[in-house]
Amino acid sequence: MATKKELKKKSVSTEPYKGVRDFYPEDMSVQKYIFSVWKKAVESFGYVEYTASPLEPAELYEAKSGEEIANEQSYVFTDRGGRRVTIRPEMTPSVARMIAKRRHDIALPSRWYSIVNVFRYERPQRGRLREHYQLNVDMFGVGTYEADVETIALISNIMTEFGAQDKDFVIKINDRKIIEALFDKLKVPVNKRKDVTKIVDKKNKISESIFSDAMTDLLGDKAGDVIDALSEPKKLIMLLGEGHELVQELVQKIETLDKRGITNIEFTPSLMRGFDYYTGTIFEVNDTNPENPRSLFGGGRYDELLGIFGVDHVPATGFGMGDVTTKDFLETHGLLPKYRSTTDVCICKADVHVDDLAEELASELRRDGVNVAVDITGRKIAAQIKTADKQGVPYIICIGEKELALGVFVLKHLETGKETPLKKEELAQVIKKLEI
Amino acid sequence: MATKKELKKKSVSTEPYKGVRDFYPEDMSVQKYIFSVWKKAVESFGYVEYTASPLEPAELYEAKSGEEIANEQSYVFTDRGGRRVTIRPEMTPSVARMIAKRRHDIALPSRWYSIVNVFRYERPQRGRLREHYQLNVDMFGVGTYEADVETIALISNIMTEFGAQDKDFVIKINDRKIIEALFDKLKVPVNKRKDVTKIVDKKNKISESIFSDAMTDLLGDKAGDVIDALSEPKKLIMLLGEGHELVQELVQKIETLDKRGITNIEFTPSLMRGFDYYTGTIFEVNDTNPENPRSLFGGGRYDELLGIFGVDHVPATGFGMGDVTTKDFLETHGLLPKYRSTTDVCICKADVHVDDLAEELASELRRDGVNVAVDITGRKIAAQIKTADKQGVPYIICIGEKELALGVFVLKHLETGKETPLKKEELAQVIKKLEI
Repeated sequence: MATKKELKKKSVSTEPYKGVRDFYPEDMSVQKYIFSVWKKAVESFGYVEYTASPLEPAELYEAKSGEEIANEQSYVFTDRGGRRVTIRPEMTPSVARMIAKRRHDIALPSRWYSIVNVFRYERPQRGRLREHYQLNVDMFGVGTYEADVETIALISNIMTEFGAQDKDFVIKINDRKIIEALFDKLKVPVNKRKDVTKIVDKKNKISESIFSDAMTDLLGDKAGDVIDALSEPKKLIMLLGEGHELVQELVQKIETLDKRGITNIEFTPSLMRGFDYYTGTIFEVNDTNPENPRSLFGGGRYDELLGIFGVDHVPATGFGMGDVTTKDFLETHGLLPKYRSTTDVCICKADVHVDDLAEELASELRRDGVNVAVDITGRKIAAQIKTADKQGVPYIICIGEKELALGVFVLKHLETGKETPLKKEELAQVIKKLEI
Repeated sequence: MATKKELKKKSVSTEPYKGVRDFYPEDMSVQKYIFSVWKKAVESFGYVEYTASPLEPAELYEAKSGEEIANEQSYVFTDRGGRRVTIRPEMTPSVARMIAKRRHDIALPSRWYSIVNVFRYERPQRGRLREHYQLNVDMFGVGTYEADVETIALISNIMTEFGAQDKDFVIKINDRKIIEALFDKLKVPVNKRKDVTKIVDKKNKISESIFSDAMTDLLGDKAGDVIDALSEPKKLIMLLGEGHELVQELVQKIETLDKRGITNIEFTPSLMRGFDYYTGTIFEVNDTNPENPRSLFGGGRYDELLGIFGVDHVPATGFGMGDVTTKDFLETHGLLPKYRSTTDVCICKADVHVDDLAEELASELRRDGVNVAVDITGRKIAAQIKTADKQGVPYIICIGEKELALGVFVLKHLETGKETPLKKEELAQVIKKLEI
């Protein structure tokens, strides 16, 4: 550790903490766009916003999350009062805690969403981020298939709002209960089931031979049947029988979605999703781009999670959608809008005599809903214009003696160079209408 | 530390971590209102949004922040890679770091803002929060008084946007350079100045006798003159002389603000503001409520801070405004809007036969910009209506066989009980127009 004297001698680094991002205005603009589409879509389905602190008691994650997250991948520290604190690695335990706390005051069903940063202590060599943002969408209080259907319809709606077409993505669905039924049918020992799902969850990340070896190690001569059923929906359905209650519910979900125009659904028995708390339907959105068939995001039903707080049974279903994968998807498919500043116009001053006029004009435009920066540097007008242009401000108005005398202002669109002479009272409307 | 087995036996607590808040939808609505006014006001002045991670290298706070914050009041931990990490206690070092990092790519002047959570390790007995949200507003690259004037004008504008009147608050201003000039004039030893400003900063929190004793201990027989000049603007100005450059600049600032209609300015020589990094104009907004004359928020000029990163001189001025004091002020003055859900209407279903119609209607309304929740619980209609009402949803539409047959829908405003029969295509417009 450097002493204070040593620190003063050398400069402080301008780098952020390892694995987190700085959001400069151009980066923030992308975030704001993604967040605004998320907000619009989920609020249109009746979801209301909540949030919680990123600091949570460590015990919250130790009862039910996937163990890797609770133990290895989380930031955990002890505060000076001896409390063990976790910097949240995911939002589901927090929202479950909040619902459980007011279980008897909250009118269910609740549709809740939040957009928050979550933190994972990733090993440096993996090059993954230690902080990312996530939309979290959860419905509490509806245990029937309608909630799963609505959640998947909402996911489809979010993707559509981003400009994605049905061919760009596929929504894979599965049901943890169907997998349990399969295990029952094939007499997979209960104490091996968790390990089987863990290996299946990693299937796409390991080679086929490693996968089948691992399955055989666990299941012996049953491995082949299990692999077959998990790889081939038809085989799985045949095994359970078409009349099986769970199969019929699955068919009903897919048919209801189809009736609502959502056809890019794929029953995928090998879909497992990481978290231990899922209890029923699970789903995952995948990019269909053949060069990069990534998993984008997903979620599922977790009817038992609130039990860890000792409250009555509350069925729940939800999903999380990250900013990084969303941004990658939008970039790949050419769906990110071009940057423009939230500042609509910059008033440049050719002269100190126009100070009052510039401020007066700025105030009037602001009152009419225009975002105005006044250049107060006193630099040459060319330098003022260059700054506005570099900052992505779409319009400028230059004010000098002439404008002071005549009361007519030239509105210049920087990208096209187009100049429009306007009276003061016409400016706001034109600036807002021409919006690019 | 409890073993895993012990944890499973008892329930997990639903309490958040000590000193932080959960934001339920009603609380979040207040936050969203405050944030939206902040955003609107600062963007109207040409500020653009940025953000950074709450995790920062600890050294960032050790070079220039007030020492109390760097050493006692911050969350600092060491990560598994041996990096010392601070959970940010304030935003100014982060924004200074970001500007310094791209010093030669960023077109100055930059007007930047962020709305972020900041963390302080407050001692429990003080009952203060360990996390709060803050609007941070900073202008980089303008060293002249115009930047200070614009910043104060923006502060006034924010207060006005919240519905505050000039009589509700006063903006105190001071200048660190004037205080230095006073110290020079009264020959206050350089090595005692920092301690003097610290005592003056605490003036309102300690008794008058403790204050004057502390000053006398430090300054001996000079204490009386210093106290007089800091308590009485006229005496200070007389001491420095009306023609003094700094006094003239101060008068110019106040006159320029007056010309722009901002008259609730008060030159307050005893205003110090805590942070060590201020170098010039400082200001603070105070509630004028005689029962609770609190300091609400403030800021100032910090022209030297970027020097710690080894970059060229970049003048800077800015302020931070917290959510807690803002909310308290708005509550005290009756300026907080009443809660209503972001969900505009809930569709209640009297019958399972109307499922398709309900979803179709919901889709159409969503397309027209209405936020719609469909009740998918299958409960009795009275229970559905009660939930919508309890959740603060302003409107409901109940659908049964009749609506299915006739294609006319009754829009009910829950607060007034007013019912309006409408055709499907009329609904969206009425819901949006009647907005409460």
